[in-house]
Amino acid sequence: MDVKEQAQTIDDLEDEKGGEDEKWYVNAVRNAELADYSPVKGCMVIRPYGYALWENIQRALDQMIKDTGHQNAYFPLFIPESFLQKEKEHVEGFAPECAVVTHGGGKKLEEPLIVRPTSETIINYMFAKWVQSWRDLPLLINQWANVVRWEMRTRLFLRTTEFLWQEGHTAHATADEAEEETRKMLEVYRVLSEDWLALPVLTGVKTDNERFRGAVRTYCIEAMMRDGKALQAGTSHNLGQNFSKAFNIQFQSQAGPLEYAWQTSWGVSTRLVGAIVLGHGDEKGIILPPKLAPYQVVIVPIYKTDEEKASVLERCRQIQQELKATVRVHLDDRDQHTPGFKFNYWEVRGVPVRFNIGPRDVANNVVEVAVRYNGEKFRGVSQDGLNNYTTELLDKVQKEMFERALKFRAENTHKISSYDQLKKTLDKSNGFIESHWCKDGECELKIKEETKATIRAIPFDWQPTPGNCIRCGKDTDQRVVFARAY
Amino acid sequence: MDVKEQAQTIDDLEDEKGGEDEKWYVNAVRNAELADYSPVKGCMVIRPYGYALWENIQRALDQMIKDTGHQNAYFPLFIPESFLQKEKEHVEGFAPECAVVTHGGGKKLEEPLIVRPTSETIINYMFAKWVQSWRDLPLLINQWANVVRWEMRTRLFLRTTEFLWQEGHTAHATADEAEEETRKMLEVYRVLSEDWLALPVLTGVKTDNERFRGAVRTYCIEAMMRDGKALQAGTSHNLGQNFSKAFNIQFQSQAGPLEYAWQTSWGVSTRLVGAIVLGHGDEKGIILPPKLAPYQVVIVPIYKTDEEKASVLERCRQIQQELKATVRVHLDDRDQHTPGFKFNYWEVRGVPVRFNIGPRDVANNVVEVAVRYNGEKFRGVSQDGLNNYTTELLDKVQKEMFERALKFRAENTHKISSYDQLKKTLDKSNGFIESHWCKDGECELKIKEETKATIRAIPFDWQPTPGNCIRCGKDTDQRVVFARAY
Repeated sequence: MDVKEQAQTIDDLEDEKGGEDEKWYVNAVRNAELADYSPVKGCMVIRPYGYALWENIQRALDQMIKDTGHQNAYFPLFIPESFLQKEKEHVEGFAPECAVVTHGGGKKLEEPLIVRPTSETIINYMFAKWVQSWRDLPLLINQWANVVRWEMRTRLFLRTTEFLWQEGHTAHATADEAEEETRKMLEVYRVLSEDWLALPVLTGVKTDNERFRGAVRTYCIEAMMRDGKALQAGTSHNLGQNFSKAFNIQFQSQAGPLEYAWQTSWGVSTRLVGAIVLGHGDEKGIILPPKLAPYQVVIVPIYKTDEEKASVLERCRQIQQELKATVRVHLDDRDQHTPGFKFNYWEVRGVPVRFNIGPRDVANNVVEVAVRYNGEKFRGVSQDGLNNYTTELLDKVQKEMFERALKFRAENTHKISSYDQLKKTLDKSNGFIESHWCKDGECELKIKEETKATIRAIPFDWQPTPGNCIRCGKDTDQRVVFARAY
Repeated sequence: MDVKEQAQTIDDLEDEKGGEDEKWYVNAVRNAELADYSPVKGCMVIRPYGYALWENIQRALDQMIKDTGHQNAYFPLFIPESFLQKEKEHVEGFAPECAVVTHGGGKKLEEPLIVRPTSETIINYMFAKWVQSWRDLPLLINQWANVVRWEMRTRLFLRTTEFLWQEGHTAHATADEAEEETRKMLEVYRVLSEDWLALPVLTGVKTDNERFRGAVRTYCIEAMMRDGKALQAGTSHNLGQNFSKAFNIQFQSQAGPLEYAWQTSWGVSTRLVGAIVLGHGDEKGIILPPKLAPYQVVIVPIYKTDEEKASVLERCRQIQQELKATVRVHLDDRDQHTPGFKFNYWEVRGVPVRFNIGPRDVANNVVEVAVRYNGEKFRGVSQDGLNNYTTELLDKVQKEMFERALKFRAENTHKISSYDQLKKTLDKSNGFIESHWCKDGECELKIKEETKATIRAIPFDWQPTPGNCIRCGKDTDQRVVFARAY
């Protein structure tokens, strides 16, 4: 069954009704076999190649989460409906998105259960039991889990009813410690994005309209995709005492009196896979950064006769053996496909580096190297020292992919002071627009309505500078970054 | 809030209404902080220490699953209700246990969604799309996920409404290949149980009454707990063509005609944590096998004066540094607790080996070593070569824990030919009972009704031997293993 037919059967083709960019995205994801539509509206199937990519992201991030003192735990999938109502803003944010279990074990339930859209409520209910004294703090917990937020219009990885993520939840004795934690985890996300995904990100604070419901402040990392749109790649929330008051997380302070804990939560999701696709891809499809690619190098043998096949495959296997201790290497020794088919097959899957090896290469003790991200080819690379050559090349590719994305972002970031110019720029090429804003949420919503652009972040390091609101013209010292976003 | 008070609040105390053994279990799990009751009936919270243990089980098993050629993927949490009905026996098995989502995004759904109790149906729906030709086979997929089966009477880790597990799902071109796969994965589970959990297991086939609904044959590993009861620790199912026919997984065979695929599924769950608790624990609580313990060694410093504290802690840190490349070592340098408190604290948590280090040990360049599983202590162990000493000791403990469990199982396995004797033995000390059985499912159900014992397995290597059914006396050559089970 071909892709089109399958998707139509599933009746989940909103994406393909979109423009060229959306078609490119869906094709890139599906041709690379990262994910597939499922028969359950809004839910995707993460295929082995996509899941291997997610596992590599998980492994890198999990280590960073542990290195910063957090412990993994697991909390129930189901949340009593009444829990969501304990924090007013939280329930307003999530109620319309919930999947509700009304029957279990053949009976109607007395109280419906919500499939977790996020776990602040259930986790903080437990925190209230575990936290008694300042000695129990800080409590630093992370959970890897699936969550569900009902979506009418879905996009593989970017917006799905069910997705996979990690959610950190912490409790602290002081407001300062909670703020420090919120920023520390945002920094972890920045490192993950820049050093692993090779995607530069803006770091900053969200406006009130854009912050997580229930948080005092939401910090974010925002990446620019190849079409100039923004993608929120991770958020870190300072929850203040909102949830500790709703769930009565009180502790005896070192000074004596009972106090409410100060809290944070933070998360990134399988959306990061979408960020890699949109942040690096080209007309051929996805391009994976070497540090996360399931296969960093694929070897394609080239032969015509049986005799050639024997000697070429032998050499390929030898090289595979030599590399495999330090490199994730795969030998494509399928007999039913031509080298040309295989070149395309692995390009579509974004493998960073390909080695082509034919009879002449065997004779000359060399390989041909093809780099996916820029299409460069190097012929006659010596097989002596290939191990070092490969790790250096992969490092270089990782670095250059980041630099290319950084350059692209710089080229597509514009300081603009006229509303008309902002609209024209967005319509022409999207990008990040640095402009003044009057700090009025109403004005911000009007801009969104009129331009489809939102304030992505108020960058951390920006100093107040005098100017006029891009839309209403009021005097203001607040500059912000506008963009259309995924 | 103490353990008792908290549990009563949650109103989920079925376990504690049970006998002494059940009280011991609940206390062992909760005192070790492996898990806690949650406010959602039937669901547990896996606490960091319990989750770290599960992560170690996962890591070991995931590697074995990959080494046998399988790839991880992820399928939707929700399954359309109609899918479950496609395989008749399957729906009969699971319908009463399902949690049902009837509302999503603020609306009543046209078709209710089932929260997956297992994923055969949704995964095989996708397999039907992915499998066209014999070249697409074998398809070897594994998923790590949460699943939900409504339970009225729950026990932490052993039986909970939501639990974590892996589920393998494979499709093959021939019946023989599927059978080989089913056995191969059972063997993986045997290795996991024996080499990692240090729990010997029976391997064999289930009777029709005990097999997975929808399977042609169910193989299992059965472990004996310290109370003599059996615990099914993992199952591997040969599904034949039941699901491929229900979901139309057809492929063009190498010979030409379309054929239905031959399939398997296999899984182990967080139940394995319960198996470790019940399989090794003693009056002090849980005992962890070194290969899976989150901390293999805990160092407890012993001092009175500030001067002693400085030199003892310095030495402890030095030893921690030396060990940490090869051993999961933790230094308990909390100042507010006495050494006695700490000894008990880590014993309750089942840490395999403890090093106690006081001023005299520092002076003599030695440590005191305490082994959890048998209570042995070694004084004056030299700090020179402590690294080798420790890894050898941990290996020895791992091996001896397995041997102890093996010996215990041998002592509690009985060949019995009188029904009366079977009942008496079970009532006295449980254990595995090897007896003849007439192969009649009705007789088997009567035995269950009358003795609470079930046939745990028909071991693979048993030859037919003449005898009489333990209950009805009929001639039969079939010997089986009866036991009461968790």
